[in-house]
Amino acid sequence: MPKELTPRAEDYSQWYNDLVIKAGLAENSAVRGCMVIKPYGYAIWEKMQSVLDRMFKDTGHSNAYFPLFIPKSFFTREASHVEGFAKECAVVTHYRLKNDEKTGEIIVDKNARLEEELIIRPTSETIIWNTYKNWIQSYRDLPILINQWANVVRWEMRTRLFLRTTEFLWQEGHTAHETKEEAIEETLKILSLYANFAENYMGLPVIKGEKTENERFAGAVDTYAIEAMMQDRRALQSGTSHFLGQNFARAFDVQFTNRQGKQDLVWATSWGVSTRLMGALIMGHSDDNGLILPPKLAPIQVVIIPIYKGSRELGEIGTTALKLKKAIEEKGISVVYDDRDTHKPGWKYTEYEMKGVPVRLSIGPRDIQNKTVEVARRDTLEKSSLPQENIVHHIEKLLEDIQNNIFNKALRFRNQNIFKAEDYQEFKDIIRNKGGFIMAHWDGTTETENKIKEETKATIRSIPLDAEQEKGKCIYTGRPSSQRVLFAKAY
Amino acid sequence: MPKELTPRAEDYSQWYNDLVIKAGLAENSAVRGCMVIKPYGYAIWEKMQSVLDRMFKDTGHSNAYFPLFIPKSFFTREASHVEGFAKECAVVTHYRLKNDEKTGEIIVDKNARLEEELIIRPTSETIIWNTYKNWIQSYRDLPILINQWANVVRWEMRTRLFLRTTEFLWQEGHTAHETKEEAIEETLKILSLYANFAENYMGLPVIKGEKTENERFAGAVDTYAIEAMMQDRRALQSGTSHFLGQNFARAFDVQFTNRQGKQDLVWATSWGVSTRLMGALIMGHSDDNGLILPPKLAPIQVVIIPIYKGSRELGEIGTTALKLKKAIEEKGISVVYDDRDTHKPGWKYTEYEMKGVPVRLSIGPRDIQNKTVEVARRDTLEKSSLPQENIVHHIEKLLEDIQNNIFNKALRFRNQNIFKAEDYQEFKDIIRNKGGFIMAHWDGTTETENKIKEETKATIRSIPLDAEQEKGKCIYTGRPSSQRVLFAKAY
Repeated sequence: MPKELTPRAEDYSQWYNDLVIKAGLAENSAVRGCMVIKPYGYAIWEKMQSVLDRMFKDTGHSNAYFPLFIPKSFFTREASHVEGFAKECAVVTHYRLKNDEKTGEIIVDKNARLEEELIIRPTSETIIWNTYKNWIQSYRDLPILINQWANVVRWEMRTRLFLRTTEFLWQEGHTAHETKEEAIEETLKILSLYANFAENYMGLPVIKGEKTENERFAGAVDTYAIEAMMQDRRALQSGTSHFLGQNFARAFDVQFTNRQGKQDLVWATSWGVSTRLMGALIMGHSDDNGLILPPKLAPIQVVIIPIYKGSRELGEIGTTALKLKKAIEEKGISVVYDDRDTHKPGWKYTEYEMKGVPVRLSIGPRDIQNKTVEVARRDTLEKSSLPQENIVHHIEKLLEDIQNNIFNKALRFRNQNIFKAEDYQEFKDIIRNKGGFIMAHWDGTTETENKIKEETKATIRSIPLDAEQEKGKCIYTGRPSSQRVLFAKAY
Repeated sequence: MPKELTPRAEDYSQWYNDLVIKAGLAENSAVRGCMVIKPYGYAIWEKMQSVLDRMFKDTGHSNAYFPLFIPKSFFTREASHVEGFAKECAVVTHYRLKNDEKTGEIIVDKNARLEEELIIRPTSETIIWNTYKNWIQSYRDLPILINQWANVVRWEMRTRLFLRTTEFLWQEGHTAHETKEEAIEETLKILSLYANFAENYMGLPVIKGEKTENERFAGAVDTYAIEAMMQDRRALQSGTSHFLGQNFARAFDVQFTNRQGKQDLVWATSWGVSTRLMGALIMGHSDDNGLILPPKLAPIQVVIIPIYKGSRELGEIGTTALKLKKAIEEKGISVVYDDRDTHKPGWKYTEYEMKGVPVRLSIGPRDIQNKTVEVARRDTLEKSSLPQENIVHHIEKLLEDIQNNIFNKALRFRNQNIFKAEDYQEFKDIIRNKGGFIMAHWDGTTETENKIKEETKATIRSIPLDAEQEKGKCIYTGRPSSQRVLFAKAY
């Protein structure tokens, strides 16, 4: 199996597809738009899940599970919600197959038609708020802070592995609050949690911002998102947190007795990240040799490869390698000793580079003699020969160093590719010639946003939360603006 | 909210339903046959998942994820498989909703009909073996040892929370092997793993056995299962492991080059446990006061309740309680200190008994004076006052003791309710008057099995693996038999 990738410079999109396949992360399934997440890809997703799950629990959230199916009538209760999702819903209409008496073929049993069609959840606000109705009577029942790990289905016409698939895996938080302030606080708390995860675990710098009306979640009052820059300078929305106001409480009549003894509608948030994060992780860091994984999310952090001729050499090296493996594992670092005799060291080097294992140790006969190890780091491809003594400590530091280096490299790249545009001509030049993120003034109307999108394919990614207030004029209409917003071409 | 359960002696089935609701484990959703797993129920399921996942990984398995949808044509490839599942399939036929132009209602868009219907997976052999076809060329690609955590759907007509629901959560292992022997070894290895989990974590003794042809998984050559006895003496099948022979390899044409350089069909196993285990856990141990949880699966292992009047007392007690909490947590034990002033201690006692928290500590002013703690264990409801000194060590031992006691109690009960029947009259008497498990001779025919089932409602749960070979005569036909089999009424 040739393990070469199309170089990024040649065809970035093909490079990504090659990499997902050749690193054994995922592949297209026989079902249109649905992927198979392969063991190595799933192991990275499990690492992400485990960190996020801990973060959710540490901030007071519990997991629960709600049905896959949503009755059509629930779905239609919140008008803008159904409008947003109706065009991409998988619909269950029957509950039985049978043998066709004439042909003997297996067919759908027409007598087993559902009275009401069921939608496969594209997101679970409606079924969850219909449930919360029974859980909430008084302010004493609030807040409800629940998260769900689940699969969801959105019938996408153009799909790409991890980035946009018909079925995907995600977590969706759904919280219920007494007051507007508390719900907004929760929305922003989760946005920061996501940013923390992206930056400190995935090694991806992100910009936190509020979405424009146009890009808002169907049913939300405000949508916030984190946006990351990929290596082709396009933006990838990596997580969203929605302040839902009282929209779903109104649609499902979820009232509670407040502290003043009066009936009020409950305030809501929802938020999610999905297997799309895998796409961000892959595209954010990797190179023409394969994946580059931040050590905190790498299923295998260190691989040890013996360089030997014949079984006697292998035996000697094995003794040293296994001792080293044990010492490294004791530090909570995951290590594989790959002594398979079916593959040569060179093949293994290529393979673990493709898989993005952060640190590779090689041990040969000369290392045994000199009490050394060859240490190679995946991010920079640098190699050095080091004494075995104290090597575990060195590896611990190296993993930290790689984690930081990956983040800093992505941060430098991102910062080098954020531009300010003062007028529309400059804006168009940047989009055409450089790409990247553009901070520019906008008049706040959907009309202008749409025109810019039509003419340049760049969209407003968000109104950044941490940007300074600065008066200016809309690059398109010249009307006044109080803050620059973030434009980019996006995935 | 009154927290009383219908006593088991009065109505066992109602007791179960009451308990699932009142302990906050799950409830019926608005979607027929689908449940909402509430946070406390889900926390127990997460504990189960975490232990099982570790066991799977320790035996060399990896997780992966395959699509929710199965094309109808895949489903029909393995004849007995489709026969077994066709009658309970949820079928997706459309992928879009739209506004009805006349009524304005949201309806299914008839123009968005799928060319081929998609089945929501009731189990994933077909989609997985269709995928494995591309992964396996040579014996070097084997074995494949994959597990998937997923939701599945079987359109059940009569449903009960956890025990039988239209959608349920489970894990399904799907392995591929070079040889028949290796596949059978895997099948039995997993059966033992399940038995180990049931006995050493759930505290439920189980009988390992082979299913009769009648009860075999649709598509399997042999099905093995673990059977546990519930407190009403009925059997609950708690996990199954299937040797699939070459059936799915044949159906999906999965061939490989073997060590002799010849083409051969791949050998397969599949195996699973589901949220049904929650039903087994609840029914296996609990009493009229609520849940009894084995400490190894209890989300909260210890609760501390302050007994106080006024905030000064609470302050003093709080200092001691928090110190104690910290010391207990350092041992890896999960503790809650419930100092809510909205509920009285008596209410809290009842609540944590309902939730099955294994150990309850109470601290009042007199305990502060005497440096004591009141310790109550959930399984026996025994209370004792103990010195605070050394209490953490005592709690550690107590949790172990409770874990063992729960298992031993269930084992005693099960063994007291296994009977031998030498003839059909005796068999019927036992079924009618005592219930429980009956070991009896059977002639090995489906016909006899069905007749006994029709006449007594008892089914052959399995042909136990560890039972002695003993010649005898079938209780129904008098024909010769080489081993007793296990009969019971079952869930």
